[in-house]
Amino acid sequence: MESSAALVPFSQLPSFFPQKPNNRISKAHPSWPSKPRTSLPTRIHCQKMYVPGFGEASPEAKAANNLHSFFTYVAVSIVTAQLESYNTEAYEELMEFLSRNSLNDGDKFCADLMRESSRHQALALRILEVRSAYCKNDFEWDNLKRLACKMVDESNTRLMRDYVLETSHVDNEGK
Amino acid sequence: MESSAALVPFSQLPSFFPQKPNNRISKAHPSWPSKPRTSLPTRIHCQKMYVPGFGEASPEAKAANNLHSFFTYVAVSIVTAQLESYNTEAYEELMEFLSRNSLNDGDKFCADLMRESSRHQALALRILEVRSAYCKNDFEWDNLKRLACKMVDESNTRLMRDYVLETSHVDNEGK
Repeated sequence: MESSAALVPFSQLPSFFPQKPNNRISKAHPSWPSKPRTSLPTRIHCQKMYVPGFGEASPEAKAANNLHSFFTYVAVSIVTAQLESYNTEAYEELMEFLSRNSLNDGDKFCADLMRESSRHQALALRILEVRSAYCKNDFEWDNLKRLACKMVDESNTRLMRDYVLETSHVDNEGK
Repeated sequence: MESSAALVPFSQLPSFFPQKPNNRISKAHPSWPSKPRTSLPTRIHCQKMYVPGFGEASPEAKAANNLHSFFTYVAVSIVTAQLESYNTEAYEELMEFLSRNSLNDGDKFCADLMRESSRHQALALRILEVRSAYCKNDFEWDNLKRLACKMVDESNTRLMRDYVLETSHVDNEGK
């Protein structure tokens, strides 16, 4: 019963990363002994590091955009699992639609689903409602922050430890 | 000066979306008039919707993993921009390394950068430090939540409005 989400096709993903060069409201970068960019009059000096390459948007907006796609995917998974347990006909219809349409662009997926038939339209409205409820009520934002920070710390430690182990020949001569 | 990040290559991205079917600690799904899944004894009933397909992990862990890659990308962008302004030699070296190595797997990128040369190693350590500081101090988590929820609401409204406009022939007969 829980396997339904595995059938959702994802060949490509919306990109986190901006493709074109541009400017963002600047931030000073106090962590490093670099020259302050006092020559640039438009820069706003604050205690945050300057992040280039996000244009008019911000890293937060870029990440939010990616999460938006993710929430659509989660909403489709939730609705699919619900339908599977009590409405086999609608489940089959949604799975058939999923097999023909990519979820990479979640909004386009929902727009197309709305226009497929009146039954599909009801499913689309339900997916919209679920993704809104999931984003606001169910998704654990504090947990996201905690996990992401933990992941960065653990990865940093692991990368440095692996490097030290690899280059240290004290206990491990032949390596 | 701000264009440095545009040179970072990103042909593929780490996936938000799980590929294989599996179970997760279950949640009830009270939003819909569905049958409660009382037949499954292992399920924990709470007020959240059941999200299938994330295995041992959670949607939050999946999203955190994606943000982890994003933070590495941001850290590389930050360091590149800093170097460009005061250490052209290191900037050139990092850009040259970036042209040869993908940032899709941020941890592998850092591991490879560490092993390139002692100068590259210093850059790698700096990237690790920046991504940790960025994640903990600079990234605006509250803003992320606000933007993502706003994006979902606006998209839902737009999708429904567009559909109504398209199917309504009251003011727009020929369409």
